[in-house]
Amino acid sequence: MELRKGLEDIAIKETSITFIDGELGRLYYRGYSIFDLASFSNFEEVAYLIWYGKLPTRHELEDFKSRLAEERGVSEDITSFVVRTSKQGNPMDILRTAVSMLGLEDRQEGDFIGKAIRITAKIPTIISLIQRSRNNQEFLEPDLSLSHAENFLYMINGTKPNAQDSRVLDVALMLHMDHEMNASTMACLVVASTLSDIYSSVVAGISALKGPLHGGANSEALKQFMEIGSPDNVEKYVMGKLSSGQRLMGFGHRIYKSMDPRAKILKEYATRMAKNEEINRLIEIAMKVEEVGIKVLGRRGIYPNVDFYSGLVFYSLGFEQDLFPTIFASARVIGWTAHIDEYLKDNKLIRPKAIYVGDLGKRYVPIDER
Amino acid sequence: MELRKGLEDIAIKETSITFIDGELGRLYYRGYSIFDLASFSNFEEVAYLIWYGKLPTRHELEDFKSRLAEERGVSEDITSFVVRTSKQGNPMDILRTAVSMLGLEDRQEGDFIGKAIRITAKIPTIISLIQRSRNNQEFLEPDLSLSHAENFLYMINGTKPNAQDSRVLDVALMLHMDHEMNASTMACLVVASTLSDIYSSVVAGISALKGPLHGGANSEALKQFMEIGSPDNVEKYVMGKLSSGQRLMGFGHRIYKSMDPRAKILKEYATRMAKNEEINRLIEIAMKVEEVGIKVLGRRGIYPNVDFYSGLVFYSLGFEQDLFPTIFASARVIGWTAHIDEYLKDNKLIRPKAIYVGDLGKRYVPIDER
Ligand SMILES: CC(C)(COP(=O)(O)OP(=O)(O)OC[C@H]1O[C@@H](n2cnc3c(N)ncnc32)[C@H](O)[C@@H]1OP(=O)(O)O)[C@@H](O)C(=O)NCCC(=O)NCCS
Ligand SMILES: CC(C)(COP(=O)(O)OP(=O)(O)OC[C@H]1O[C@@H](n2cnc3c(N)ncnc32)[C@H](O)[C@@H]1OP(=O)(O)O)[C@@H](O)C(=O)NCCC(=O)NCCS
Repeated sequence: MELRKGLEDIAIKETSITFIDGELGRLYYRGYSIFDLASFSNFEEVAYLIWYGKLPTRHELEDFKSRLAEERGVSEDITSFVVRTSKQGNPMDILRTAVSMLGLEDRQEGDFIGKAIRITAKIPTIISLIQRSRNNQEFLEPDLSLSHAENFLYMINGTKPNAQDSRVLDVALMLHMDHEMNASTMACLVVASTLSDIYSSVVAGISALKGPLHGGANSEALKQFMEIGSPDNVEKYVMGKLSSGQRLMGFGHRIYKSMDPRAKILKEYATRMAKNEEINRLIEIAMKVEEVGIKVLGRRGIYPNVDFYSGLVFYSLGFEQDLFPTIFASARVIGWTAHIDEYLKDNKLIRPKAIYVGDLGKRYVPIDER
Repeated sequence: MELRKGLEDIAIKETSITFIDGELGRLYYRGYSIFDLASFSNFEEVAYLIWYGKLPTRHELEDFKSRLAEERGVSEDITSFVVRTSKQGNPMDILRTAVSMLGLEDRQEGDFIGKAIRITAKIPTIISLIQRSRNNQEFLEPDLSLSHAENFLYMINGTKPNAQDSRVLDVALMLHMDHEMNASTMACLVVASTLSDIYSSVVAGISALKGPLHGGANSEALKQFMEIGSPDNVEKYVMGKLSSGQRLMGFGHRIYKSMDPRAKILKEYATRMAKNEEINRLIEIAMKVEEVGIKVLGRRGIYPNVDFYSGLVFYSLGFEQDLFPTIFASARVIGWTAHIDEYLKDNKLIRPKAIYVGDLGKRYVPIDER
């Protein structure tokens, strides 16, 4: 029996959802380049594409958009739970529990994508509720006339967002929707393979995404820019960090050996945003870190990854730092559920083994003789 | 890249917790035979053994027992949540959510086994609360003077159990504590490998155990005995089922090719229990099903597994049928947490791959041209 601890280079399934080209720095959803989707498409359309495998007609898209919008509300039970825990709780713990409660409330059989839509629509409502209620701001009802991204920003900030901000969030969410296999998607599949339900699977995905090795790097990268404080300090900070053997946060990737295409896209949006002084300075710092980092690490194939600019983007849109992993979850839930759906079409229980390395045949000694 | 869908024959870790000898029908925890442990040991001692890797001294055991007992209470928040959902909710959904809430409530850092103890102590309280509150029975405070198994039965039935019943539950729980790798343990490890927290990992374990391919066979086996109705119908039922290509529930196992040692032990206890007429008839039926089943399937290595008698045992102890998977979880949580602890001593992020089989390079077509 082979020991394969991290399951590196083991394929758990075949997929037609996502393809990553690590050499060239390309990412495709359902065969469409992420560059095209980020330029021409939007949250709702790409969610449809990932779930159904094709771009929707206008009629299908309108229909889908209203289904998503109509599902935004959450029950009083969940609202009061989130309000009660928002001040002290970790946002990922709150989200995990709230989605678990959604599973209890949904007593309908079947309609897998219908359930995926329900969860996807409600997560931004739960996230906004966390941020607003812990800041003693009134809770806002979702505005069904707004798009998914617009409404998300509206519920966070309490004002209708401008076109630029909603476009930036729209794009950032598209970029986070799927990334082939990864720990949280794997957690979803293991649960789904026992024929457990979709809510249980998504709860496992959130549980895995919470880990700092997975969903936490975006806020670390931002913290680093804040620490640096000014563009003049970048060179010294980066060189100091690297020469003392530490890692530059938001750099490097298991698969991409050139610049992560998602970082490229986010950088473009981040630099185009006109923001307040604090944000402008952070962007300047980030760009300088990128430049210095690539100069030192680039020849070893270590480039900025998605988390390098995403934290900065989320922050500038009004999200509090500890909510970043929940925003990640709000988009990745689309990839999770699409992979579950694909896996269940030809299910096989996921049941690896372990290699026994302990003693055997020990004699049971009565307690008074121990 | 190899496609290994179910991860069959792939070892995800080395372990010194559990060894299964499928040929001889043997099971060992930390090197001790399950037959010895079932004969001489008890829930608390085996939990200690699995977590700490050695049998406790009398002093260590007393200390450990009081830690476990003292942690039995659950918060008002969780109590009111369970009461509110018990009548309509699936017990595994309720348990998954309640354990997720436990994670929110625990704000202490570190002490992994301390947290495992907390969860293990509280699960029986949550299960009893489900059964009693949906039957409009008053909720009982845990009795700290009772052992884990005694208190569990007391909180379910409202009366102190006799010595025989608590011994039977004690043994049944020991038998369910660990079984090397399996889907729910794998779900726990995937989550833990991102350095997420223990509650998130256990929530993923419960999520996986909920699936009918994993934690649900015990109640199916019992249903089958109820359907048969009388020992006289067994021969016809079993032959009819098998000749029409259906499976006998509670028979067969991926690893055991002889009788599952856990089934052997449970059978002994089941047949020794003096119970009411209904239970006695069910036991008679089960024994006849075993006899006929082995006659037909035994030469192909298909024998009764743990679920064959466990449902019967749980039922005779006063547990309602849809709670069986939660009882399974109440014991398996010990194996889950021991495997997490062992894995994290030399952690590696679990991140498999997928093989892309879809199209590439599709052209984005504007919506009006679709
Ligand atoms: C993402 C990451 C874990 C991928 O790493 P990996 O493929 O497993 O590669 P390794 O961790 O083995 O690193 C390979 C080498 O590159 C170096 N390296 C990788 N990322 C680095 C970084 N961000 N800064 C400095 N050096 C880095 C390592 O030190 C190692 O050098 P060595 O061979 O001299 O020891 C890693 O790049 C990293 O830790 N990045 C920082 C955290 C981060 O941004 N995470 C977000 C991931 S989306
Ligand atoms: C537990 C179980 C899934 C393990 O099966 P497995 O190792 O994956 O083996 P397979 O399902 O491939 O079965 C192998 C052969 O044995 C037969 N078989 C296995 N269990 C059987 C059962 N309970 N009744 C009748 N035939 C059975 C299968 O039909 C198959 O026959 P075939 O080769 O002619 O098609 C299987 O035995 C089963 O479904 N049992 C019934 C449900 C149950 O009790 N589950 C509890 C598990 S702890």
